[in-house]
Amino acid sequence: MSPKLSIESALETVIKSYEDQGGPQLLAQAIRHAVIPGGARIRPQLCLAVASACGNDDPRLAMGAGVALEILHCGSLVHDDLPCFDNAQLRRGIPSVHAAYGERLAVLAGDALIVMAFEALVHAAEQSLNRLAPVMKLVMQGVGTPHGIIAGQAWECEPKVSLRTYQKAKTGALFSAATMAGAAAAGGNPEVWQTLGDSLGEAYQVADDIRDVIGDMQSLGKPVGKDIELDRPSATRQFGLDGAVGYFDELVAKAIRSIPPCQGEEFLKKLVLHESERLVPNALYDRHLHAPVEDLKKRPVV
Amino acid sequence: MSPKLSIESALETVIKSYEDQGGPQLLAQAIRHAVIPGGARIRPQLCLAVASACGNDDPRLAMGAGVALEILHCGSLVHDDLPCFDNAQLRRGIPSVHAAYGERLAVLAGDALIVMAFEALVHAAEQSLNRLAPVMKLVMQGVGTPHGIIAGQAWECEPKVSLRTYQKAKTGALFSAATMAGAAAAGGNPEVWQTLGDSLGEAYQVADDIRDVIGDMQSLGKPVGKDIELDRPSATRQFGLDGAVGYFDELVAKAIRSIPPCQGEEFLKKLVLHESERLVPNALYDRHLHAPVEDLKKRPVV
Repeated sequence: MSPKLSIESALETVIKSYEDQGGPQLLAQAIRHAVIPGGARIRPQLCLAVASACGNDDPRLAMGAGVALEILHCGSLVHDDLPCFDNAQLRRGIPSVHAAYGERLAVLAGDALIVMAFEALVHAAEQSLNRLAPVMKLVMQGVGTPHGIIAGQAWECEPKVSLRTYQKAKTGALFSAATMAGAAAAGGNPEVWQTLGDSLGEAYQVADDIRDVIGDMQSLGKPVGKDIELDRPSATRQFGLDGAVGYFDELVAKAIRSIPPCQGEEFLKKLVLHESERLVPNALYDRHLHAPVEDLKKRPVV
Repeated sequence: MSPKLSIESALETVIKSYEDQGGPQLLAQAIRHAVIPGGARIRPQLCLAVASACGNDDPRLAMGAGVALEILHCGSLVHDDLPCFDNAQLRRGIPSVHAAYGERLAVLAGDALIVMAFEALVHAAEQSLNRLAPVMKLVMQGVGTPHGIIAGQAWECEPKVSLRTYQKAKTGALFSAATMAGAAAAGGNPEVWQTLGDSLGEAYQVADDIRDVIGDMQSLGKPVGKDIELDRPSATRQFGLDGAVGYFDELVAKAIRSIPPCQGEEFLKKLVLHESERLVPNALYDRHLHAPVEDLKKRPVV
C-alpha cells in the first residue's frame, strides 16, 4: 500500500472507532466531514518518510504521530474557517464544517479533534512507552502556544507581528513537528530533521500567499484574495509576487540541502520536489505572467 | 499549604511558564484570564483527595492530572460562553474571555488550553512514564468524544437527547476523570472510584440547573435563566424544582456511600458534604420557598 493510502486507512480507522462508540451523531458527522476526504496529507507523509529514513522500527508509533498531526491540522482548518476568522464557506471544494453543520458543531468538532489526535497517539505508543513523552512533546509544540499553529493564528489578532514569526508558527511549526516526531518515533535524533520541517513549512505558507494572489478558486477549492481582504501579513504583500516566488524556490532548495545522508534520502528529495511543484505549479505562475492586465483586474475578491 | 492553595500555585506556575516563552501577548492574556482567578477548583481537589486516599506516591503526577483537568474545564467554559453557544458576557463575576478579548482570541485560548493541559500532564509524568498513558487516557475520555464534556456540549445540538446522557457527558465525565485519574496517578485502581465521580458530577449539573432557576446573578457570577432561554435540557424542567432538589440530595448520598474504606475516607466525605452545601445552600432554597410570589415573578431572565 502506498504511504498515502496507508495514511487514509489509518485515519478512517481512528474516525470509525469513535463513531462505533456512540455519542452525539451530528458531532460525529462533523468530525468525519473535517477529516475525510482530506487534502495531500503532506504532514503525515513527511513524518512517515523521516521515520523510514531513521529505520522505522515502530511503524505503529510513526503512523500514530502522523495521524495525530493530520487530525490536528484538520481541526485547525475547521476553526480557521469559522465566521470570526476567515468566514470561509468552502474548504477542499466542499462546504466548510460550519457551513455544513453550523458554527456550534464546528467549534466542538475542532475541539474534539485536538483531543482525538493525542488519544490516537497514546494508543499507538503501547509498544514504546518510553518514546511516548518525547513524541508527544514535539507534536504539542507544533500545535500549541507559544510557537505552534494555534499561536500562529493568534498572531493575526496582535497589533504588530513579523511575517517570519507569524508564518513560522502558523504553518512551519506543524511541519517541524512532523519531521521531528517522525524521527523521535523511530528512535532517531529529532534535531537533525528540524531544518527540513522549518523550511518546508515556511515554503508552504509562502506558496499559500502566492496562490492567494494568482490561484483560482477552482484549483484551490477555497476562495482567493483573503489576505488583503482580512489585512493579513503575507509574503506577496511584503516582497511582491516575483520576490515571493524567488523566496519560495530558495526555501525548497534549503529543505533539500538539509536532508542528511540516510537510506531514504532520494525518496525524501523527490517528495519535496513533487510537493513544491504541486504547491506552486510553474504553469500557474507562467499563466499569470502572461495574463492580460484586464484579466488580473477582473479577478474576483470573494 | 492547603490543597486549594497548592493547586492555585501549580496553575500559576504552568501559565507563567508559557508566558515566559514569548509568543502572541493577547493570547497569553486571554489564557490567563480564563484560568486565573478561578472557581472552586473542585476537579483537581477531588483528583488530589482520591490520589491521597490511594497513597499518593507520586504527588507531582497527581498534581499534573489535577492541573490538566482544571485547565480543560476552564477551556471548555471559554468555548461554552461564546456567542454561538451561551453568549455569556460574564463568568465568575468578570467579563467572559470573548467579552474581554473578542471571539477570535476566545476560540484560540480554548484550543490552546486543551493542548496546554495535556502538555502539563506529560511534563508531570517524567518520574512515572508507565503511568502516563493510563492517566492520560482517563483524562481524555473525560474531555473528548463520544462521552466527555465536548460531547456533552454537542448533545445540545442534537434533535433528541436523554437528560441523563447529556448531563453525564457535559459535567459528570470530567468528575469521573478526576476521581479515576487521581487513583491511577497514585497506582490505585481507577474503577473503584468511578461511582464517586459519576454521582458528584451529576449532582453538580443538577445543582447548576437548580441555581439557574432560584439563584441570583450576584452569587453565581453569571446570568441565570439560561436553560429555558436556550431550550436546554435541565433537571428542574424535567422533575420540577422540588424533584430536582430531592434528586440532588440522593446523588450526594450516593457519592458518599461509594467512598471505599481508605486512609482519606473522612476527608473525602467532608469534601463532598462541604461542596454540596456550597452548590445548593439550604439558605438559598429556603429563601426561594418563602419568597413572595411577586418576587419570583419579578426575577429577571437575562
